[in-house]
Amino acid sequence: MFFQEPELQYEVTVEQPDPHFAKLLQQAIGGQEGEMRVAMQYMFQAWALPEGYEEYRNLLMETAAEELGHIEMLASAVTKNLRGSPKQMSEDAQETAATAAAMTGQNPRQFLSAGQSAMPVDSNGVPFTGGYIAASGNLAGDLYANVMAEATGRTLATRLWEYTDDPGMKDMLSYLIARDTMHQNQWLRALETLDDPVPVPASFPQEQENQEFNYTFISTRREEQPDPGYPWTQGESPDGMGEFSYAAEQPGDGEVIAPQPDPMTNDEPNRTSESDNSDDSTTSSK
Amino acid sequence: MFFQEPELQYEVTVEQPDPHFAKLLQQAIGGQEGEMRVAMQYMFQAWALPEGYEEYRNLLMETAAEELGHIEMLASAVTKNLRGSPKQMSEDAQETAATAAAMTGQNPRQFLSAGQSAMPVDSNGVPFTGGYIAASGNLAGDLYANVMAEATGRTLATRLWEYTDDPGMKDMLSYLIARDTMHQNQWLRALETLDDPVPVPASFPQEQENQEFNYTFISTRREEQPDPGYPWTQGESPDGMGEFSYAAEQPGDGEVIAPQPDPMTNDEPNRTSESDNSDDSTTSSK
Amino acid sequence: MFFQEPELQYEVTVEQPDPHFAKLLQQAIGGQEGEMRVAMQYMFQAWALPEGYEEYRNLLMETAAEELGHIEMLASAVTKNLRGSPKQMSEDAQETAATAAAMTGQNPRQFLSAGQSAMPVDSNGVPFTGGYIAASGNLAGDLYANVMAEATGRTLATRLWEYTDDPGMKDMLSYLIARDTMHQNQWLRALETLDDPVPVPASFPQEQENQEFNYTFISTRREEQPDPGYPWTQGESPDGMGEFSYAAEQPGDGEVIAPQPDPMTNDEPNRTSESDNSDDSTTSSK
Amino acid sequence: MFFQEPELQYEVTVEQPDPHFAKLLQQAIGGQEGEMRVAMQYMFQAWALPEGYEEYRNLLMETAAEELGHIEMLASAVTKNLRGSPKQMSEDAQETAATAAAMTGQNPRQFLSAGQSAMPVDSNGVPFTGGYIAASGNLAGDLYANVMAEATGRTLATRLWEYTDDPGMKDMLSYLIARDTMHQNQWLRALETLDDPVPVPASFPQEQENQEFNYTFISTRREEQPDPGYPWTQGESPDGMGEFSYAAEQPGDGEVIAPQPDPMTNDEPNRTSESDNSDDSTTSSK
Amino acid sequence: MFFQEPELQYEVTVEQPDPHFAKLLQQAIGGQEGEMRVAMQYMFQAWALPEGYEEYRNLLMETAAEELGHIEMLASAVTKNLRGSPKQMSEDAQETAATAAAMTGQNPRQFLSAGQSAMPVDSNGVPFTGGYIAASGNLAGDLYANVMAEATGRTLATRLWEYTDDPGMKDMLSYLIARDTMHQNQWLRALETLDDPVPVPASFPQEQENQEFNYTFISTRREEQPDPGYPWTQGESPDGMGEFSYAAEQPGDGEVIAPQPDPMTNDEPNRTSESDNSDDSTTSSK
Amino acid sequence: MFFQEPELQYEVTVEQPDPHFAKLLQQAIGGQEGEMRVAMQYMFQAWALPEGYEEYRNLLMETAAEELGHIEMLASAVTKNLRGSPKQMSEDAQETAATAAAMTGQNPRQFLSAGQSAMPVDSNGVPFTGGYIAASGNLAGDLYANVMAEATGRTLATRLWEYTDDPGMKDMLSYLIARDTMHQNQWLRALETLDDPVPVPASFPQEQENQEFNYTFISTRREEQPDPGYPWTQGESPDGMGEFSYAAEQPGDGEVIAPQPDPMTNDEPNRTSESDNSDDSTTSSK
Repeated sequence: MFFQEPELQYEVTVEQPDPHFAKLLQQAIGGQEGEMRVAMQYMFQAWALPEGYEEYRNLLMETAAEELGHIEMLASAVTKNLRGSPKQMSEDAQETAATAAAMTGQNPRQFLSAGQSAMPVDSNGVPFTGGYIAASGNLAGDLYANVMAEATGRTLATRLWEYTDDPGMKDMLSYLIARDTMHQNQWLRALETLDDPVPVPASFPQEQENQEFNYTFISTRREEQPDPGYPWTQGESPDGMGEFSYAAEQPGDGEVIAPQPDPMTNDEPNRTSESDNSDDSTTSSK
Repeated sequence: MFFQEPELQYEVTVEQPDPHFAKLLQQAIGGQEGEMRVAMQYMFQAWALPEGYEEYRNLLMETAAEELGHIEMLASAVTKNLRGSPKQMSEDAQETAATAAAMTGQNPRQFLSAGQSAMPVDSNGVPFTGGYIAASGNLAGDLYANVMAEATGRTLATRLWEYTDDPGMKDMLSYLIARDTMHQNQWLRALETLDDPVPVPASFPQEQENQEFNYTFISTRREEQPDPGYPWTQGESPDGMGEFSYAAEQPGDGEVIAPQPDPMTNDEPNRTSESDNSDDSTTSSK
Repeated sequence: MFFQEPELQYEVTVEQPDPHFAKLLQQAIGGQEGEMRVAMQYMFQAWALPEGYEEYRNLLMETAAEELGHIEMLASAVTKNLRGSPKQMSEDAQETAATAAAMTGQNPRQFLSAGQSAMPVDSNGVPFTGGYIAASGNLAGDLYANVMAEATGRTLATRLWEYTDDPGMKDMLSYLIARDTMHQNQWLRALETLDDPVPVPASFPQEQENQEFNYTFISTRREEQPDPGYPWTQGESPDGMGEFSYAAEQPGDGEVIAPQPDPMTNDEPNRTSESDNSDDSTTSSK
Repeated sequence: MFFQEPELQYEVTVEQPDPHFAKLLQQAIGGQEGEMRVAMQYMFQAWALPEGYEEYRNLLMETAAEELGHIEMLASAVTKNLRGSPKQMSEDAQETAATAAAMTGQNPRQFLSAGQSAMPVDSNGVPFTGGYIAASGNLAGDLYANVMAEATGRTLATRLWEYTDDPGMKDMLSYLIARDTMHQNQWLRALETLDDPVPVPASFPQEQENQEFNYTFISTRREEQPDPGYPWTQGESPDGMGEFSYAAEQPGDGEVIAPQPDPMTNDEPNRTSESDNSDDSTTSSK
Repeated sequence: MFFQEPELQYEVTVEQPDPHFAKLLQQAIGGQEGEMRVAMQYMFQAWALPEGYEEYRNLLMETAAEELGHIEMLASAVTKNLRGSPKQMSEDAQETAATAAAMTGQNPRQFLSAGQSAMPVDSNGVPFTGGYIAASGNLAGDLYANVMAEATGRTLATRLWEYTDDPGMKDMLSYLIARDTMHQNQWLRALETLDDPVPVPASFPQEQENQEFNYTFISTRREEQPDPGYPWTQGESPDGMGEFSYAAEQPGDGEVIAPQPDPMTNDEPNRTSESDNSDDSTTSSK
Repeated sequence: MFFQEPELQYEVTVEQPDPHFAKLLQQAIGGQEGEMRVAMQYMFQAWALPEGYEEYRNLLMETAAEELGHIEMLASAVTKNLRGSPKQMSEDAQETAATAAAMTGQNPRQFLSAGQSAMPVDSNGVPFTGGYIAASGNLAGDLYANVMAEATGRTLATRLWEYTDDPGMKDMLSYLIARDTMHQNQWLRALETLDDPVPVPASFPQEQENQEFNYTFISTRREEQPDPGYPWTQGESPDGMGEFSYAAEQPGDGEVIAPQPDPMTNDEPNRTSESDNSDDSTTSSK
């Protein structure tokens, strides 16, 4: 159950409105690395957890509500960059196409569709999609997804930070970057509370997986290469349950030809007798 | 540069063709957790790496080519499940709608659009999208994305394994599950070769982030709660650079009201004098 | 700024778990008529409102937070339908494809991708998209969008209500249907507080629109028809600013042929002299 | 059944070709508020209507065919803006990236993919999607969807009108704005011909909905607020079937914890004994 | 400019309503091979044609309007299959999940979202997208796209024909199949009226393309293979402008390592001294 | 099974890095006409082919692997254009929004999301989708799809060629254009090896299609036109199995009114008695 107050989670000010930056900020709202993704991701993960996982459920829901507040902060930053000095901008906008493009932040929909406000889209105007959200039902897998989400999210925020000189925007981003630092750490810590989370899912009986290839680096180089002695071709594996080895060749032993389809598919083209008697000798691979 | 041989990377056999399972297998081809995603993800990550990262570039490209072979194996598994006993199936299919639905594996496009073969879609027929692919240009972030991709990928493969009794399918999945074990381990090992990868991105000067909130768990509970003493509210943070603390309240100090839009937006509705004199006393939050 | 409590907004119980119904419920979560849409729609609309619209901003945000709670209720309903008697179901599931299909609710991703839990997708497994969200910056237009959203949302909820006999599900849906009744009414009442909201946007100077065709019903019938005397071909218009009239013909007076493209486009195919001397006499329309 | 003539529904001329404006016009073709949406929306709505609704079916189909003509007009406007003075533009285009960007209207696909012509995409190049179309089978809900579609459509058209000084474009938009005025009015009038359309769907027996919450405004504010006395917290409801009331609290009475999933999901991570003995006392909300 | 009449282009009757078939028919409406695609494709292609191409413009627009009528026919077929014996179906539907699934045609949105009518989606419920539409501005390329569209469209129609025993449906499909035959032939004939359409685009000066590899089949086999003597490795090329040859090896001569990114990207992870001194000797390919 | 070498298929050099061109190049990677599409398209087509089609399977797989190498070349071209002189660019970028926009190539995600590298998206940042891929299971249809794919692909490449003056980029594109020439020719030659591929699918018994309309051009003009004597209204059809004829009228004989929906749909609005007694006399079309 959710509640809200008419106040931003953290102050958002803009000294020099910059419509182009308003476009860039959209990536942090509706983009693959954005806040809509993490807010919903943490909720769906929480809603899948059964009895016995209350502290993780709380952790996820506490953070989800925080992320909703980040969407709101960023939406506020967008309107404050788009609307700051509208009069002057719109006059310039009619002078030349090049200036107009820059002044509208080049996402024309922020003007055309949203009347100078934020949208549920990324910095190219591509709508947010539920396809960005990872919630597998398996807590360990979900926690890795969250580390990853906060890692790409913090990377995005630092790039936005590099892109602006506005003190208000720098301050807001400095806060969001700090939160991503915290969130990366909290998900990593939560992973540490699980016994042997790797390989995910841990509940699958590992003896059922193929025992010949589960710790072997398989090279796909065209010509066989000697073991390069990389940290992932020898030594103990991070999960502590195997020893890395190296195979210069993929196993290779499978029939590539598909079975005949049902005639109802009408898959069959007419063929000349010549092509029908094709010499297939070149197709065997060995 | 790529090469191919007309042979599968690993044997794929089906004893009892099961069109419904053919539908499920699509998730591992074109789904969010599927092989098209990882194959392309590893490539795009590799192509972003500059000089000095050759061993990581090789690692990524070697694995990308392996994953292409997994797509091929799964596509083969789909046709072998769909086409195994087509005659009998198609006759049944015309008897009743319920049977027909089951017999076509309920993804009608595997029949209608693809003539009983595999497609670049997930198990609901939703097309693969580049939006699944994470490639940030930052190696540490990308490696976490890869751990996550293999974690959800292995989880998917084990669920498919649970869903079938066919020895051929069990064997193929046992191989794919083993490969996901290896890949989780290799990405984790690659992360270990980086100094202090967390918080990602490490190259951002951490003193620039807000120092008050970068290791603080902020509760979003409606009523203030005491520090629950969870592993993420106290103790040293996993990145070794901070000490977790607990805040019962979000900071909260931001103006939620957007600036006035440009009149050119035509955002302004006509309003009655009554509504214009609105009493806004309820909107202040403190 | 958002807060949350570990409690559902309204009780959600399931007496007879029905995985098929779990699939249907997804439409109310991530579908075009679902709760993810309205929750985000009301937020983005609120974030665009400038000073002077506080009561509308509050109205929108109060309702947005309520809708977040509806997503949570529906997600809970999904897990309670999917997981209710898992043992029995999974055994049946392996017997025949037809039963398995029904038992997994036919959205295989609820099992394969989410481990028997809810997802940000619709009842066909199509991911939620920001493209469903309407937030134009113009309050009157947005309020009509909200009436429409609650109208299609309530229609969906009543159809789900018809589809189930489970008392718990009927009760939950009865609550959601009631809320949609309230929300339809509140958006209509908010529209009534605006002076002359139609035609939207009201701030556009109506004398700038074409005065010949702004209250004329234009027939597109192949052969000219007499005025049928429908309520939209005569009488005063609902906005009170015009009189409906009837035109049996579209105006029609525009050149359909595109200008020559730049040679850099390589649009030009090679053409035979015969086709080049084409007799274009049939292309004039009058 | 459809017919066509090689003539535009209304004259489309461009005096000063402006490739940037060609990009903006795409929003009115393939965007969320565009003409492809309404043309198809009105058709699908019409095709769902059974006997007894002929005047509505005609209304919808007459308008659908008109909207097809609007797509054609806008496509013509795009080519006339892109191709007007191609020689000069393409030369400039090679001078500097900034100019080139402006000159191609910044939707590179209008050049690269379409050879300087219109496309079924929005102003950011995002393809049109059937997900924009609302056709519920319920006439009242559909009519509200149509009012909304024309409201956002007219808002878009007025914003485009503000953005151009070209007399030809102003005239074309003045016509399209007028048509949106008419269409808003015709859908509102059609709604007036229905008895008590609200709440939609009217055929659902209203006594089946929860009687405690169907006319109550539920506040989601963090701290309980007194009834603000807004027009939607007291007084008769617009549907004439209830009296608005105010609740300072969400009902709240539902169990948030999901049931245990089937072991076949492999949802279960390994857990340390410490985390297993979690103290859940903080999770109860009251 | 478009017109319409309240009559179907061709008779559509259903003797035995089959909701499952209603789901399959959606592929021919909103699917990749469906009628929405061709109707819009032919329009956008037509709208790009400049003076001198009137007969092709007419050809495209005549056919586009015909395809609009096909969408209408198929939508009619959907409602006639879904609604034929609703009473009986809905009662069965509540008995068991398996039957219910079959009876609703397993696209729950045809019931939930559309009230038993057709939708702008494919047979899996995936919305139609403008991304299916090919309109390049180059007539020859577009005509090949049209041959392809009608080829896959006719294949789909024949598969639907195989799937039904209903005489009415067979008759409707027999008509649609016939039209696809005509359309394949008309696009091929139109191609014949162009001089040397291949390689598309013909207006590009062919001497500007690489002269070493424009008629050479390049093998990507792992190990060099002798020329298999296939029709595409020797003999004159179909465009009459070259002689096929065979290369056992890809040229291969390009530097794969990306340049260093700007430090502002924060691409750089922290690295251990060990990994920094990586031995790159394994990366050279020759 | 796939292999790779750390070498590009063909040299890729950039003399004057141009971030704007990096944006345009994305169309050839992840766009509708791009290399991701053809690489995957040829694979899925190959994987559907049963015994007896080995030479076609080889043809498809050989080319698929080549196209993978083209993606890699283009990704290399993107980083080389984005990163060439990063220092200077990033400083300029902070000066003015207009320059910044141009300098980042206006796809902000190449910087924000990918750290100045290539992405699986098109030139507007729209993600690649499996919906671009055509693989029907019918070889003849697939070969036409391939001709079309290479035709639009070559058109795109020539437009990119026109857009750049960089010798390295011209050389790379000259190679890719040449390959598209080869591929158009090889698919056409493969079509020639099939007997009577048209109409696709050839295996459908042509006597089952409607014999009245399979070689008739049906005009959709509003007023009946005489046979224009076009090459597609008279003469033998290209498939050699019919004679073109001309019909000035669509057949037209179908009932447009949908059956009554099930009451469970709640499709029925309340209606006034007036509207219920609607005079339907205008709806009959004859």
